[in-house]
Amino acid sequence: MQTSSLEIALQKEPIQLPSLLQDISRVAFIEHPLQDFLDSRIQSFFPYQTRLPLLRAEIRDSQSFSPLKVGVVFSGGQASGGHNVIVGLYDALHKMHPDSILYGFLDGPSGILQGKYRKLSQEELSTVYNTGGFDLLGSGRTKIETQEQMEAALGVVSSLQLDGLVIIGGDDSNTNAALLYEYFQGKGCSTKVVGVPKTIDGDLKNEYVAVSFGFDSACKVYSELIGNIAKDALSAKKYYHFIKLMGRSASHVTLECALSVHPNYTLIGEEVAKENKTLSAIIQDLADLVCERAQKGKLYGIVLVPEGLIEFIPEVKQLIGELNRLLVEHPEDPLPYLSSGSKACFHSLPKSIQEQLLFVRDPHGNVQVSWIETEKLLVEGVRQELQRRSQALAWNVVSHFFGYEGRSGFPSRFDSAYCYVLGMTAALLLREKAGGYMCFVEGVHKPLNEWRIGGVPLTRLMALEMRKGKEKPVVKKALVDLESPSFCFFKAAREGWKWKDDYCFPGPIQFWGNKNVCDPIPITVSMDLK
Amino acid sequence: MQTSSLEIALQKEPIQLPSLLQDISRVAFIEHPLQDFLDSRIQSFFPYQTRLPLLRAEIRDSQSFSPLKVGVVFSGGQASGGHNVIVGLYDALHKMHPDSILYGFLDGPSGILQGKYRKLSQEELSTVYNTGGFDLLGSGRTKIETQEQMEAALGVVSSLQLDGLVIIGGDDSNTNAALLYEYFQGKGCSTKVVGVPKTIDGDLKNEYVAVSFGFDSACKVYSELIGNIAKDALSAKKYYHFIKLMGRSASHVTLECALSVHPNYTLIGEEVAKENKTLSAIIQDLADLVCERAQKGKLYGIVLVPEGLIEFIPEVKQLIGELNRLLVEHPEDPLPYLSSGSKACFHSLPKSIQEQLLFVRDPHGNVQVSWIETEKLLVEGVRQELQRRSQALAWNVVSHFFGYEGRSGFPSRFDSAYCYVLGMTAALLLREKAGGYMCFVEGVHKPLNEWRIGGVPLTRLMALEMRKGKEKPVVKKALVDLESPSFCFFKAAREGWKWKDDYCFPGPIQFWGNKNVCDPIPITVSMDLK
Repeated sequence: MQTSSLEIALQKEPIQLPSLLQDISRVAFIEHPLQDFLDSRIQSFFPYQTRLPLLRAEIRDSQSFSPLKVGVVFSGGQASGGHNVIVGLYDALHKMHPDSILYGFLDGPSGILQGKYRKLSQEELSTVYNTGGFDLLGSGRTKIETQEQMEAALGVVSSLQLDGLVIIGGDDSNTNAALLYEYFQGKGCSTKVVGVPKTIDGDLKNEYVAVSFGFDSACKVYSELIGNIAKDALSAKKYYHFIKLMGRSASHVTLECALSVHPNYTLIGEEVAKENKTLSAIIQDLADLVCERAQKGKLYGIVLVPEGLIEFIPEVKQLIGELNRLLVEHPEDPLPYLSSGSKACFHSLPKSIQEQLLFVRDPHGNVQVSWIETEKLLVEGVRQELQRRSQALAWNVVSHFFGYEGRSGFPSRFDSAYCYVLGMTAALLLREKAGGYMCFVEGVHKPLNEWRIGGVPLTRLMALEMRKGKEKPVVKKALVDLESPSFCFFKAAREGWKWKDDYCFPGPIQFWGNKNVCDPIPITVSMDLK
Repeated sequence: MQTSSLEIALQKEPIQLPSLLQDISRVAFIEHPLQDFLDSRIQSFFPYQTRLPLLRAEIRDSQSFSPLKVGVVFSGGQASGGHNVIVGLYDALHKMHPDSILYGFLDGPSGILQGKYRKLSQEELSTVYNTGGFDLLGSGRTKIETQEQMEAALGVVSSLQLDGLVIIGGDDSNTNAALLYEYFQGKGCSTKVVGVPKTIDGDLKNEYVAVSFGFDSACKVYSELIGNIAKDALSAKKYYHFIKLMGRSASHVTLECALSVHPNYTLIGEEVAKENKTLSAIIQDLADLVCERAQKGKLYGIVLVPEGLIEFIPEVKQLIGELNRLLVEHPEDPLPYLSSGSKACFHSLPKSIQEQLLFVRDPHGNVQVSWIETEKLLVEGVRQELQRRSQALAWNVVSHFFGYEGRSGFPSRFDSAYCYVLGMTAALLLREKAGGYMCFVEGVHKPLNEWRIGGVPLTRLMALEMRKGKEKPVVKKALVDLESPSFCFFKAAREGWKWKDDYCFPGPIQFWGNKNVCDPIPITVSMDLK
């Protein structure tokens, strides 16, 4: 591959560290007992991880350490900064002891199962520092769940004599990290497992983890594009742009981009669900927007739609639920078996969406929600509503879906620094023989110098959910909190954004220049951490 | 509107000028008689513009000048840097004389017809310097063509006593600039008209104009996204991405992006036309690519498709031509009247494309080629071909269209500087009472300091074309030159790009940092100017 000028320049960028991490031989974790009891049903799944304390790093006397053998794996979809996690992990392991070894498992968790790995070198890692993607190792969505898979993983980590295994992944991957560690413990295996919070969706966050890595970079790429399109709309004055944004189960990405660009209308799935807003009510709202803007002579506008919207709309959610069930029982033709409400909902949808619901399956045989063109569904609905209202306006609409272009871009300065520190944190936790933890960095809204690090027991992030008819402990997904400062700000501002074109144009991610341009963290994170 | 941190920082950037333009009181144009005769048929349309010499600026003795009154208008689609043209124009006019006046016509050429304009101020312009879009004035696609329109324009420029009118536009707008100027001359009106070469498509270039403004910024935005997607493909290893790129009549944008990112397969419309390549031959090629990469274990890839491809495919071009004619004669149902070849072609297309051909009309009643989802047409074709070949591979494809997000982004450093200089050039030409010219900047592949400026008679850029059954002079569109150094380089390299994943990741446009990152001009331009 040809190295671009930007890659060459970014690879030479000096690594910036919090003062806490300037000398890692002096970093020690302090145990903070957690007050609340862990739910006894969750305890029952994790007897070995029940009493883990919270860990926070402090500066203590300098110590020396033995070399560590560690494996690392990417799990699930790409997020910018993943390579820096590995570089930070490698550097910290080798600062602890030059004989430490870091293995990278290839193509995701299946690399652990099949014993496909590579020993990573300083030289190789220097070429991926500050680059996007997970191509150093590849990734995958295989889950280590069954007894056979657990055994296979145990066999591989044991034969490699790993002191630690770092799983870079989202909520599901971190749930599996805890299950795997529990299994290892039960088998007397000394390999500790820690998780690193990754997902562009931003739904892996909690009291300790302010944001998952990749969220900032993805939102900045999308915001660049939405801003460009808003500028175009404002210049051409003749197009509505309906823009669907990645971020499957939660609308964090959409909220962040809305706060960044100030579009005319933004749908937030969590609010739709809370208000029990029907598809037809959403379409009415949008048609009102178009008509009222047209009265002001504005035949253009920007509408943001979260990818997961369709599952938050009550009657569509119901329909999808019924279809998922019926596709098992009546795969040929589930339609006659729908409830009357779902039948009505199905027949109200445009033909193309009906086909997507019936014929596009995910690997579990369920309706492939992420492939449903929600943005087109809304456009079609609004068009019909405008015709019904006899609005003889020329309504030109362009629809967009931004997803893949935001997952593997160069990490923003925030994600670059954050990921390197997360990688170091993983190394430090493993040095303390701390397994069953998720790495976290506190104070990311403060100057980098002041960031603090720690580990939170994975079990403390869990709730019980029904999976395949059984209650299972899973790392909770964080939905958009409708009481949060960021959502409240958005709610207060959005009425003005509807009519005034109060667009803001953030432009492309910058790596050099003044700090207001280069260093901002996500707007939602900075509002909610205050 | 809320000013973003990037806007604030970019508005403070110092203006960089070629040494030639450091003191514009000393800049004079030298006449260079043009050797070749102007085609007599073109002469007959432009008696007043037949003998115009080429103008090139030189440094001479300092002079003082009277104030000028100038109008400026954006014509057609957005291109990054348009605001800087106006800032450069304004600054130069006011350096010549502080009492100069610059009017901006609103919403495109219709603003000239309706006398809708605004006097522009230093203060207002300081807020748009280095921003994207045309929102300072708006733009539009109205053409000043008819006798009534010419008269209306004459009335407005006369009542404003304009010394000059600057038309910022593409090939059609520059053709109209020459026609309007000819009309003004015939009526004894002293308003001079000059054109500024604008279009992201890159098809407005010639011996003097190396590149139209906006091309660089648009290609850099698209290349950022294509690079991100290539990175994602390389990490996930399970998706083909078919990416359609804006750039209607020519494939310059696609060629530039290909040289920037090195995708696995790139279609260039001009080559398809030259080789008389049928749709089915293109699909065979793509299916071969997919099968051969699959044999190497690669189930992913990046394919670039120029927006105008469909019009370069011989049988589809024929079909569209017939349909355009038949839609006038048999608007209800043109199908029975198609030739047998076109009938076969039509029925070979997927249903969704058939519908787009039949039902989506442009304002002239023609097939709306830009709305045809060529990328999906190819995907569907390849999918069928793979089934025919009984290739039981999981072929996951995502299709994209990048257009609007590249037209109105922040101008690259090149476009910023280039546009400001183009604006100054327009002011200097008008000071010399030079009408009927297109501004140009020579030596853009050299350091900015060495750039030279001039004006080329618009008539010298024209050829005769059939329009509505009549021979008309029009500014020539430059198609991709299949003998050019840039195309030859591409042709030699692309075979390797097919199998090796030789992707390059240019990343987002940078405004600060080292010059290899910030200052590159388009790759095609730098190769072809050498």
